[in-house]
This record gives sequence, structure tokens and C-alpha cells, in this order.
Amino acid sequence: MSLEKFLNQAVSSWMNEDGPFSEIVLSTRIRLARNHNQYAFPTVFTKEEAEQTAQAVSAAVKETGYPLEELKMKDLQGLEKRVLVEKHLISPNLAEDTSSSSVWLSDDEDISLMVNEEDHIRIQCLFPGLQLKEALRRALEIDDALEEHFDYAFDENFGYLTTCPTNVGTGLRASVMMHLPGLMMTHQMNRIIPAIGQFGLVARGIYGEGSEALGNIFQISNQTTLGKSEEDITEDLLHVVDQIIAQEKSAREALVKSSGIQLEDRVFRSYGTLRYSRVLESKEAAKCLSDVRLGIDLGFIENVSRSILNELMIFTQPGFLQQYAGGFLRPVERDIRRASLIRERLEMDVSKDKGGSDI
Amino acid sequence: MSLEKFLNQAVSSWMNEDGPFSEIVLSTRIRLARNHNQYAFPTVFTKEEAEQTAQAVSAAVKETGYPLEELKMKDLQGLEKRVLVEKHLISPNLAEDTSSSSVWLSDDEDISLMVNEEDHIRIQCLFPGLQLKEALRRALEIDDALEEHFDYAFDENFGYLTTCPTNVGTGLRASVMMHLPGLMMTHQMNRIIPAIGQFGLVARGIYGEGSEALGNIFQISNQTTLGKSEEDITEDLLHVVDQIIAQEKSAREALVKSSGIQLEDRVFRSYGTLRYSRVLESKEAAKCLSDVRLGIDLGFIENVSRSILNELMIFTQPGFLQQYAGGFLRPVERDIRRASLIRERLEMDVSKDKGGSDI
Repeated sequence: MSLEKFLNQAVSSWMNEDGPFSEIVLSTRIRLARNHNQYAFPTVFTKEEAEQTAQAVSAAVKETGYPLEELKMKDLQGLEKRVLVEKHLISPNLAEDTSSSSVWLSDDEDISLMVNEEDHIRIQCLFPGLQLKEALRRALEIDDALEEHFDYAFDENFGYLTTCPTNVGTGLRASVMMHLPGLMMTHQMNRIIPAIGQFGLVARGIYGEGSEALGNIFQISNQTTLGKSEEDITEDLLHVVDQIIAQEKSAREALVKSSGIQLEDRVFRSYGTLRYSRVLESKEAAKCLSDVRLGIDLGFIENVSRSILNELMIFTQPGFLQQYAGGFLRPVERDIRRASLIRERLEMDVSKDKGGSDI
Repeated sequence: MSLEKFLNQAVSSWMNEDGPFSEIVLSTRIRLARNHNQYAFPTVFTKEEAEQTAQAVSAAVKETGYPLEELKMKDLQGLEKRVLVEKHLISPNLAEDTSSSSVWLSDDEDISLMVNEEDHIRIQCLFPGLQLKEALRRALEIDDALEEHFDYAFDENFGYLTTCPTNVGTGLRASVMMHLPGLMMTHQMNRIIPAIGQFGLVARGIYGEGSEALGNIFQISNQTTLGKSEEDITEDLLHVVDQIIAQEKSAREALVKSSGIQLEDRVFRSYGTLRYSRVLESKEAAKCLSDVRLGIDLGFIENVSRSILNELMIFTQPGFLQQYAGGFLRPVERDIRRASLIRERLEMDVSKDKGGSDI
């Protein structure tokens, strides 16, 4: 398969569409955790109960009329599941489960509904750019529609009941994926990360808890799910995100002013590495992609699409590389494949721009 | 002035013509030191004697009919002299002298005749590739022609007399500029340099004694000028150079076999740096130019001309950069200018190849 076709099939709408503030906010995610009030929760249920739950969810989803398609974990190959994890459509936990768990996906992958992960249902909406309110509205719409056909575990005092107490209440996790090279280069993240903790928020790397902030990408999300409404939680997150956006913008302006040519040099060297290297580890790829994306945002680079960072941060993960290669790859083979995939992808942009490739 | 025009004017024939074994030997130089038997030698002569010598040389050169043009040191700006040094047409010593010293140059700069440097006359022939015999023949031709009109200091026992005793006898320095990335990468030069010393030869960096082997370029030349004929000296040098060529070739083959993709990666990363960096120090430029030239020799890179190493090693020296800029540049400005000159130069090749530039 040609790379262009492969990518066209693989890309989710949140990756390649520009959203509000997309020069800094890559994407917005809303997740709601829900459980049925009659079945045992996933950590303790039997195989039979798991199957009953899955069937109840299936029936409810179909009743809602949402055009979602189910992928059952037991029907998927390891590599296929890995790709879904890398696209943030399922969690690593769900991928490990082989019994009655599944994911329901919309065609352009902005909606994903995990079944029998830590909770019976996890509704997720993924939007490009900063769209907390829009994503919340959509998630609550789906939530309401499901609730008509699925009896949620709900407590008058606590709110929605969940397996993990940290999700009790709203069951909401709102998170925003931010590209913060300016704050990283000016060494401000070490100050910001503890500061946002005071607002009940947390900053994580691109693949969640414990993962590194590869490519200067941070997920900022709420920790607190209890005692505030969904609207207040997203409002508070939005407030902090707005401030971080402003700080990132001033950091970038300061960098351009204080070391314009050095910054341009860094950006273009990274572009050179992406366009020509033959062996590329994921960490270096992420660093270079971040630089190039910054270069696009600052107007240094013109003929590369902005979605390059979102797309390639995901498509150069081990799962995707192996799916594109059509089988297992050793780490060094992945580094070679990663380099060639990135070269080809950039070549697509250059060719579009000039009607011809140059090497 | 456009870069293309500037380079066309600046390039010497030995830089951009392919000579024998030019995948490893960049150029060949023959230098003969000669003095007049009646005037005091340059280290001790008076201003008047210096002037007399200069006039005697001038008269002799004109008698020979060689179409050489004289550039008097006292008429040149510092920057112009620096450029001549960088092109190996005059020595740094001559450039420092402002009295009666000069250089006579042929149109394509394959012949240069320094007057009143350490010796009254230094005849130099510069040829592309490995052409020791050809360059020696040409130098001796000029030498013979001059001798008819200029009375050489010659001793029956010692041969030609020179200011420095290390040049007495033949007054000959034969040297070959070799590009030896394979031997450097396989750490063999530390063994080879002392070994060739046993043959009365010495290996130096690109700008002579004490200079670093920037860009993996070594000048191999004879130390001994006495007790052997000119032909034997060049023959012995040729013999050693042939062996080094063979060793460099096997080193390259071994590298391709043992680490083909890593080598290709190194070559292309360097190409990326040269094509896109905005600030480039001379040391890194030399390293990258060496890598790219190796990549051309190994067939990894196809649309860049082989002369890129010879040309750009010289045109990215401080003198040239400042001449092209039209005035003095601070070191950081030179690094910026160096990067942009190299980018433009590579762009010329790419454009020729594809009829359009890509960034």
C-alpha cells in the first residue's frame, strides 16, 4: 500500500483538522466513566457478567442510533490493538483484555466507546484544537442517549459510581494535548507543572500517566471528578489552559527576539534530520517533529502541513510502523522504518508544493 | 553578485576538474624553491635588494613568455590576500609581507610563482587529482625557462641553495591532498601518520603545518629534499600515496559492509545539516562536507557535484566569506554566512538537477 493511502486510512479527524488555538493545542479529549447499576463492576465481575454487560451496551448503542462500529478485543491481533492505543482510541488496559471487552468507534474516530475496561462504559470524544465545551457537549449528548437504554449506577450523594474512587462523581476526565516547546526551551515547565496541581489539574506525557513529554507535548487534565459540575471542571481546565497558551506565546516571542537565528537554525536542522536521516529513534523523531512544528507556527517553514506533528507522533510509534511494514520489526528495523516513513511523508508535502521531489 | 557568478570567478581549475583517483586524491602540488646567486636571501636582504630581486624576477618571467599576471602584496587588501592564502596560491608568510613581495598567477591558477617569500622564487603547480609526474614536469619546465633568465644559487655538492636548510638540494616539496574519511572512521590514521614518517614523508592538515585535518583531508608530502633526485622524491611519494589509496578503499568497503545503513544515515544527516542549517561553524561544515563527499563517492548521493568538497572547504573559509559579503564579518556572522553560502551552493546543484528548488 502506498504511504499516502495508508495514512489517509489511518488518520483520525482530530489529527489533521485545524481546531481553535491549534498552534498550541493539538487536541481536546473528554472521557466519561459509566457503569450499569445491576451488573458487578469490571474488577470483580465473572465472565458471564462481562458478556451480559457487553450485550447490554451493544443493545443500548444500537438503540441510540449513533453510527458506531464495534471492534471486539478478542477478534483483534496484538498489532491492531497497539495501533488503537497509539491513536488514543483505546487504553493499554483494554488492549490486554481478551474476554468481553470491545470498543465502538465512529467513522472518523472522534467518538470512541470502550466497553468493560475499568468501568463498563467509557465514552470518549476527541476533537482537534481547543474545544472543551464542544467535546463535553457531544459526550453528554451521547451519555444522555445511552442512559435512556442503559441503567447507570448513580448515587444521589456521590453522583456516578465508578470502579476507581478517583472517577466517582462526574466520571469526567477532560484533557487537552498541548505543544509547549517555548515553555520547555525556556525551562518554565518545571515551575508550571506543580503550579497547575494546585488547581486540581495534572500534566502528563503524550501517552498518559508515567509517560515522557515526548515532542514537548503535554496532556493537561483534571484530577478532581467530585464536588464540581462537568461544566465547572471544564471551565477551570479551560481557564488554566488559556493561561498556559498565553505563556507559551510569550515564551515563543521571547525566543524569537533573543535568539531568532539560533532558533531558526534549530528548526531547520531538525527538518534536515527528518528529511534525510536513515535511522531515527522515536525520541529524536519526537524532538525534531516538535521543532519543525514550531518552525511552521513561527513561519520559518512554509511547505509542510501543520498536522505533521499530530500525525507523525502517532504514525511513528512501534505499532503503526509494524502495521505499515506488515509484520514484526526489531527495534533497529523500526528506527529505519521510522526514518523512511517520515522522509516519505515530508516528501508528499514537498512534492505537492513544487510538483517534484529533490532526492 | 550572484553566488554562481562569484564562485565561477573564484574557482581554480584544480578545484573543479576531476583528476586521476579523484575519489580519494583532491589535488597535487609541486613546489620548487629557488634563489638568485647574487642577491642576499630574503631573511637578510635590504629593502633595496628585495626590490632588485623583484625586478629581476619580473624581467625573467616576462622573458619566459608564460602568461602570468603579477599581484603585488602591497597593492592588495588584507581580505584579498587572505583569499589567496585560502586558495593555496600564496603562503600566510607572503600575505604578511608588504614590501617587494608578489605572486604571479596563471589565468586558471594552476601556476603560482611567489616572489620574495622565504626564498626569492617559489614555483608552484597545482593539479586536480593525483598527477605528481605531470605537475613535476610542468614545474621543471617553468623552472628551466626561468633559469635561462635568472641566475640560480646552485652548489655542485648541495644542489639548489635555499633559505631554510630543509629545502636545500632539490628545493622540491611534492604534496598530495587526500580525502581519507574511511581511514579516519576506522581509526587507522594514528597508525599511518607515524608509518609514513619512516619514508621521509609527513601528513599535515589542509592548511599546512600545525593545521588540523579538517574534513578528513590530509596533505602528504616529502620532508627530504636532499640526496635524491626530483623524480625519486615524487616516485617515493607516489608509492606511499598508492598504498594509502588502497587502504582507504578497503576501509570504505569494510564500512559499507559492516555498517551500511549507519554510514548512509551519517552521510544524509550531514547533507541535511548542510542544506538546512542557519548557523554553521567551520569545523562542523568540514565534517559534513567530508561526509557528503564520501556519500557521493559511495553512490548514496547522486545530485551533488563531486567538487563540492574541494570548493566549499575553501569558499567557507573566513577570507572568502568576507569577500563574498563585501566586508568584515564577526565570527557569528561568518557562521551564518557560511551556512547560507553552502545552502545556496547545494541549491544550485539541486535546481540544475530538477529544475526547481524545494524550500
